[in-house]
Amino acid sequence: MTSLPDMTTPNVAGLARDAAAHARPVDVPTPDAGQEAVFEFLLRIGDNALILGHRVSEWCGHSPVLEEDIALANQALDLIGQCQLWLGLAGEIEGKGRSADNLAYLRDAWDFRNALLVERPNGDFGQTLMRQFLFDAFHIEQLRALKASADPRVAEIAAKAEKEAAYHLERSADLVIRLGDGTEESRARMQAALDLLFPYTGELFLDDATDEAVAEAGIAPLPSSLKPAWEQTVAAVLDEATLIHPGEVYQHKGGKRGVHSEYLGFILAEMQFLQRAYPGATW
Amino acid sequence: MTSLPDMTTPNVAGLARDAAAHARPVDVPTPDAGQEAVFEFLLRIGDNALILGHRVSEWCGHSPVLEEDIALANQALDLIGQCQLWLGLAGEIEGKGRSADNLAYLRDAWDFRNALLVERPNGDFGQTLMRQFLFDAFHIEQLRALKASADPRVAEIAAKAEKEAAYHLERSADLVIRLGDGTEESRARMQAALDLLFPYTGELFLDDATDEAVAEAGIAPLPSSLKPAWEQTVAAVLDEATLIHPGEVYQHKGGKRGVHSEYLGFILAEMQFLQRAYPGATW
Repeated sequence: MTSLPDMTTPNVAGLARDAAAHARPVDVPTPDAGQEAVFEFLLRIGDNALILGHRVSEWCGHSPVLEEDIALANQALDLIGQCQLWLGLAGEIEGKGRSADNLAYLRDAWDFRNALLVERPNGDFGQTLMRQFLFDAFHIEQLRALKASADPRVAEIAAKAEKEAAYHLERSADLVIRLGDGTEESRARMQAALDLLFPYTGELFLDDATDEAVAEAGIAPLPSSLKPAWEQTVAAVLDEATLIHPGEVYQHKGGKRGVHSEYLGFILAEMQFLQRAYPGATW
Repeated sequence: MTSLPDMTTPNVAGLARDAAAHARPVDVPTPDAGQEAVFEFLLRIGDNALILGHRVSEWCGHSPVLEEDIALANQALDLIGQCQLWLGLAGEIEGKGRSADNLAYLRDAWDFRNALLVERPNGDFGQTLMRQFLFDAFHIEQLRALKASADPRVAEIAAKAEKEAAYHLERSADLVIRLGDGTEESRARMQAALDLLFPYTGELFLDDATDEAVAEAGIAPLPSSLKPAWEQTVAAVLDEATLIHPGEVYQHKGGKRGVHSEYLGFILAEMQFLQRAYPGATW
């Protein structure tokens, strides 16, 4: 570890200068508003994958059984892989030389665009699974629709990611059913997880000006258009799991426009430490 | 928050250059070995205060009752205040222009010299209290001895810190007794906390070459010389608390020579985020 350059390295100024040269200038509006909406959309989908991937990776070495540990680590890798593609495309479309790594490691909380659901703490295994299921059921619909995107690069990434998301959903739905329709203890935990997390699902289906702009351009579906299919999947799985649907409850929002819970700051502190402490470090 | 300079700020290179100019060059041996031992000793005592102060501050807003919340926050401030004095003196003695802030925020884990005890997680309130008591009982003896230091700057800081540590010990001993000799639940928790943390106390009293050099120079006591008084305090308090002394158990070590548990990295990621993400930021 001591071979890494650090803040006491003589060339730290050079490294920081390089990072700054490749960074997006602050408060300079992009000329093409359409591209800015696409960039924003790509941050939203990329940040969902990044933050959920990070959360899931926190289980590595701590899962209740070895098989789950490996399954979760693989799922985290899938999501981080997707994030690299989405944020890579975001940087390309932005056209200011920011790479996926740069976007992941050098933005602060208010520039992140993930939904609040994915930054919720892991809690117990039931909460991790329920968060995953509620997200997967949305994710699969989003990716299916994106396969028909007018932007072939978006369609291509979506086609790759869809296969992974389909497997994630199969797995999380199966486990929600087995644990919901399980012992008294496991059922109580799954119901508590559902009641805790359901208020963070509404944000996934809210439409704003960005969503309307990219939908208008045929690049992405309106989030609200994905809700009926999601509702159907969720209702069917909860029913089979013998869990009680929370119904119409208060829904939190903010993440997709950069207003986050306290949790995101702690995630970023941990996730970005290396790049922040050793600017420009590479493998 | 957006008014802070960040990695995308044009002058980040300048800020990083300033930080680098005030940083200690890597792998350059200091000419005066005696001063190096004093510097090392000051890091040990300063880092104990810093890391314990950070841990205690994590309770802010989360304590079981309001009075405890405020008491713990005050205690954290005492410790951070002491750390500023110790690390400030360390930087002065090092003579390379590093400030207390620089030492606190720009070193990585392997350069920290705190004992493993103070980086242990807060756990429940009982564990936090027990960690505090075990440390306070050592701290007070260390500071009392340091009041007679041959270095008047060390003696002066110790005299100030001793008053605070005496109050911390009074408080933590009192609570250990009340909760140990309390309900069945509180007693069980205090005993569990004691059994968990006692194996991290041995390191506080280990002597090494640095300790011998500063003791030789009359600057600080040998850690081993503080053990009898500590043993006496601990035995008396545990007895009154009706807790069972763990006796001779395996003792962990490493912190004071820079070999830390996984916890320190997470503490630093959180504690150093702002200075790492916004080099040179000031109030």
